[in-house]
This record gives sequence, C-alpha cells and structure tokens, in this order.
Amino acid sequence: MKEYFISKSRRLRSTSYTSRIEEQGVTAYTIYNHMLLPTRFGGPLEELYHHLKEHVQVWDAAGQRQVEVNGKDSYKLVQLMTCRDLSKAKVGRCYYAPIIDDKAKLINDPVILKLSDQRWWISLSDSDVELFAKGLAIGNNFDVNIFEAKIDIFSVQGPKSFDLMAKVLGPKIRELKFFGFDYYEFGGSKHLIARSGWSKQGGYEVYMEHTEAGLALYDKLFEAGVEFNVKPGAPNLIERLESSLLSYGNDMDIGDNPLECGFDKYVNLESEVNFLGKEVLKKVKSEGVKKKLMGVKIDSKKINVTGSINMYDKNNKLIGELRSGSFNPMFKQVIGIAMVNKPYFKDTQEFQISIDGNNCTGKVCDLPFI
Amino acid sequence: MKEYFISKSRRLRSTSYTSRIEEQGVTAYTIYNHMLLPTRFGGPLEELYHHLKEHVQVWDAAGQRQVEVNGKDSYKLVQLMTCRDLSKAKVGRCYYAPIIDDKAKLINDPVILKLSDQRWWISLSDSDVELFAKGLAIGNNFDVNIFEAKIDIFSVQGPKSFDLMAKVLGPKIRELKFFGFDYYEFGGSKHLIARSGWSKQGGYEVYMEHTEAGLALYDKLFEAGVEFNVKPGAPNLIERLESSLLSYGNDMDIGDNPLECGFDKYVNLESEVNFLGKEVLKKVKSEGVKKKLMGVKIDSKKINVTGSINMYDKNNKLIGELRSGSFNPMFKQVIGIAMVNKPYFKDTQEFQISIDGNNCTGKVCDLPFI
Repeated sequence: MKEYFISKSRRLRSTSYTSRIEEQGVTAYTIYNHMLLPTRFGGPLEELYHHLKEHVQVWDAAGQRQVEVNGKDSYKLVQLMTCRDLSKAKVGRCYYAPIIDDKAKLINDPVILKLSDQRWWISLSDSDVELFAKGLAIGNNFDVNIFEAKIDIFSVQGPKSFDLMAKVLGPKIRELKFFGFDYYEFGGSKHLIARSGWSKQGGYEVYMEHTEAGLALYDKLFEAGVEFNVKPGAPNLIERLESSLLSYGNDMDIGDNPLECGFDKYVNLESEVNFLGKEVLKKVKSEGVKKKLMGVKIDSKKINVTGSINMYDKNNKLIGELRSGSFNPMFKQVIGIAMVNKPYFKDTQEFQISIDGNNCTGKVCDLPFI
Repeated sequence: MKEYFISKSRRLRSTSYTSRIEEQGVTAYTIYNHMLLPTRFGGPLEELYHHLKEHVQVWDAAGQRQVEVNGKDSYKLVQLMTCRDLSKAKVGRCYYAPIIDDKAKLINDPVILKLSDQRWWISLSDSDVELFAKGLAIGNNFDVNIFEAKIDIFSVQGPKSFDLMAKVLGPKIRELKFFGFDYYEFGGSKHLIARSGWSKQGGYEVYMEHTEAGLALYDKLFEAGVEFNVKPGAPNLIERLESSLLSYGNDMDIGDNPLECGFDKYVNLESEVNFLGKEVLKKVKSEGVKKKLMGVKIDSKKINVTGSINMYDKNNKLIGELRSGSFNPMFKQVIGIAMVNKPYFKDTQEFQISIDGNNCTGKVCDLPFI
C-alpha cells in the first residue's frame, strides 16, 4: 500500500499538543473537525494496540471539538437535535446522543455534557454541528449562544490510567463513575475531567481549557507515568473495532438513520420530548429497518479500507458494504463494520468480498464482537 | 521540515478520480469537505506553478462539493445565507457569494450557481454548509430540499485550457464567458461546464454528474492534451497567493466578517434583500473594520505556514498575524496573506516575523499583489 503525505496548512488546525507529539514521534495524521488528529507513532498499529490493552497512553484528542450551547433556550435546542431524551439529564454527566435532522438522518454521534441547566457541550465526531445548531437557533429565534469552545481534549486510556491519574491528581479521581465528570485541580487551575474516552480499556478525558496549566498536566503524566510504561498514542483502529466503537463518517453517515446504526436505546420515541425526525423514526420503527450496521469476520490476514467495499452472497447478489476493517490479533482474522441490507443482516449470513483483488469469504455477526 | 503521512479511511472520502491520480503520481493530499484533495505530484510545487502558467493542467477538484437547494423557497434560503444581492441572479451564471451567520461571521465563500429559478448549487469551500442550510430551513419552515449533490468537479486550468477544451468539446466552448456555465455533450451525456476555477490562468470546471461519461472525458483530455503538454495538477499555493485567491480556513474563518476580508463589493447593504447579519454589517461599515486582510512581502526565500504567525512592529507591538505564505519566484521573496489590526493595515507598514526561529522583516501591501 503506497502512502501519501499530508499537506499541512492553517486550515488543518494544529492542536495545543501538536508540537509535543511531533517531538514524541508521531508519523501519521487524519483530519477530524478541520484539525490534525494523530493516528500512528512509529511502529505497527498492532504494537500500540497491545500496549493500550496492558498499560496507559496519552492521546492528543483535540479534534473532538466542543460546541458550547448556552442561554435560556439551550436545553430546547440541544433536545431538538437529538433523539435521546435529555429531559432528566444531570449536571456532571455525559450522554452519548445521536444528532439527526428532520429526515432522521445522522449528522453526528457526540457525547453531550450538561455543565449547568443553561450550559451544554456537544463533544463532536467529525461534522460541523456548530453550523447546524446555528441554523436551527436562528430559524427558531432561540435565545442561545453557540460557539466552538477553546477546549483541547487529551485522553488518558488503558488499564493503568486509573493508577496514573490518581498518582498525579489524587485518589479522589478513582471515585469518578463512567461517563461522569468533575473538576480537579492541577497547576493552579481546575480541569474538567470525564471518565470516558474512545477505547474500552478504561480511562479519562481531560477537557483542557487553560493551556499553560493543561500542558503542565500533560507533561506531568509522562513524567509520573514512567513506572506505568506510559506512551503517546492515538485512537486505535484495531482496538476500537474489537470494542465495537463506531466511527461517524466511517461506519455510518448522513445516509443512515439511528435505528439502522443500532442506536435503539438512544432513540426515545415513547418520550414526550420534541426532537427532529421523531415521526419519521416512528414510521421506520413500525416498518422495520431496511439495512443495519453489523459486525463481519473475514478470512483474511490483512485489509485496508479506504472506502465502501461491496459484499456479495453466493449468488453474486449485493448484500451490503464493508465500511471499516482491520486484522484483529485476538480473532486472528479481519473484523469490521458493515452496512448490511435486509434480509441479510442475520448472524448466519455468509458473503464474498474482494480485498486487493483477492476473493475472500466472510460471515456477518452481531455487535458487539465481545 | 519533517513530513507526515495521511491515514486514509472511508471518512476521508475518495473521489471519482482518486485511483487515476494515484496512477498519475500524486504524492500528497489535503482534506477538503471530508474528501481527499491532491496537493502535489512528485517534484517541487514551483515546477507545477511554472507549468500551470504556461500550459494546461487537469485537477481533481471534487472536494469542492455542491450543496443543492431546490424547491419553492430555495431562493429565499440561499439569499438569507449570503450578503450578496442575488435577486437579479441569472440562470447560467456563477456568483462568488460570502455565506455568513447572524453575527455576520464568515461560514464559507462559495461560488453559487443558479440552475433554474428553483434550483441552486452552492459550490463550497471547506465547511459543512449543508448543515447550516438544513438548520435554517427547518427553523424557518422553508419548503426546500437540501442535499450534497453527487457531483465530482474536475478543473482544467492554464492558458492552453481553451485550446484543449475546444479540441475535445468543440469550438463553441470558447464563447463561454467568465463565470458563465452551460451544458456540453460528450460520450452521450451532457456535462455542466463553467468557465471558472481556482487559478487566474484561465480555464474551466466540469461538474461531473455522470461518472462513466465523465471519466471518459477526463481520460480524453489527457489523450488529446499531449500537444498542449497537459499534466495532472492541483490548486497551487504559489499561484493562488500570487493571484490573491483567498482560501477559507487558511486566510479567513468564522472569526472574521466579510468586510474584514475585503469582500466589500459582495456586501450589498444598500439592497432590499433580506440576509443574516445585515444590521451587524451596517454597524461595522459605519464604524470601520478593526482588522483587515492584507498582502505581505517578507524578506525570506522560504516559509511553511501551518498556523497563524504573529507579526510585530519595531516596538515589538503585535500588529497582526500571517495566515498563508509561500516563496514567489516572480517577486523573489515570500508573499502571503495576513490579518492586520487597525491602524496597521496600510501599505507602508513594516513588521518583524519569526520564520523557523529566524527574524525576518516584511512589509504590508494592498491586495491583489498584481
């Protein structure tokens, strides 16, 4: 596989950590919300995968931007955009909440943080939700302020992240529950820290607001983390697929609705709250979805998915498309995420797929993989 | 300058031409509207710059996505988003039209094509205007359809583009006026072709709707173009700066208003049309702008701008920031685009700037450079 360089410019924004991760050996980037997001540090991805599952990593995750919505109508606007019922949302909690349009098409799958009754952060996957929110607010004449907050997240992930964070920030941080957040002091500033992150290996996300104190904390984690074998890292394709963490733009996009993506428990049609696409989703639900995101296992030792790859049944009928995939060391084969058409989205379905010109066989499976 | 790889995935969408340009020797990409946009083909950028000014190039410009707005209220919506008066817009014409929000902040600087009274294409720079348009339409209850059209633009640029296109499509295409568009037949399909493009060397943009016939046209241009020394190319940083073509996200962004960007002739405050931010802009106009996009010339033979670089006057006072720049062979020095604070945005202003740790002197100048 030939590799290509990325042409940097101001438009592909650097983060507060870019100069640091470049000293620490980053070798590749993707672009996320118009920002540099690291993907590799030297050696093979599999090395970082094993390391992530055993030790602790610090990730530059600033590409996960925050849209702040505050003001009198902030709840009304946030609720209008998501099919998840947030009427009982609590301050200090994170909510995974699909954002959809009036046709119930998926626009983003952020984590939403309730900072106060009139202040929310929408912590984004890769699309300009700020513009959607602004359009809705202007059109509805809502009394809100909407802007991208100056927050550069770094993520501390891996089983030893708890020990590392407790060593640096004190034992109280161990009490933070999953998807809870609170403020912790370091270097004379309070930092909003959530127990969350885009791996299933445990950890925290630091919502860095104060650059100087935040960078001191970033550096301190590497200094104090030597005994925990800390390394710089990045969201890991192998781990996120194994853990069935979906990626907007890769696994699902504006052509899909949340029921097709298996977000059923975040689609609160029985609630009384008002959100876009509610009637559309009621209809979809009663008729049943026509395609569905499923896991797949493929008899291959490698794959490089850079676009949709068609899947065919034994009669050469198109049954769906593979959207993400990687070799998985635990399953010893390729696993991936595919959008599979009705009626083929069952866990006994076999298929054929062409990988770099080679025909491979595969099988559809339910998510999560483990 | 260390270079970094780009990690491809489905989220960074390939275009209809990606496999072709990879065979043709592309070496680097940027990301534009969540899509791969080529930036370099082998040798130095300066080689392609000279070639572009003498011969003809074909560019994969599919990252310039089209948001289609159609339906009864389509004009109302499109006009609401831009400060340019489109009330007298004609079918078959392109309009450079800044898109702004209710605070008059710049969201995009697209070219807008009027396809019919109730059908428009917004041909985008790098931001999700589809989401802004959807939010506004939903909030205002407008009767419109909004979607990203399945159009992959390729651009034919350079002084010999007229001869090449006439050879392939017939002499009638020479009659097309600047920023006009019409339909031309090739391979059994009609193709919308505009006389436009992101260089000042002349040329066309082919709005490719029919993939098979479009690719046949793409290939034909290379076959027929041998006598014109045709090459695959890409928007060229050196040429676009010399020609003072601004780049959204690089030179200006959501922190700027269109008067600060020098778009005065596209800010039609005296018109009777209704658009967002109109009252804000009237106030800005009467008070005068507090910062302004200006050209700069710097006494250096090289620069690599990957973020804003501060500019200081001789008393070490911050006077603005450089946002784009490159060495220019004609000026024999670095030229660039800077946002300069009041009262320093005058063409006699000198400044100091640090490039890779070296102090350089520079001078502010008016745009365009030539």
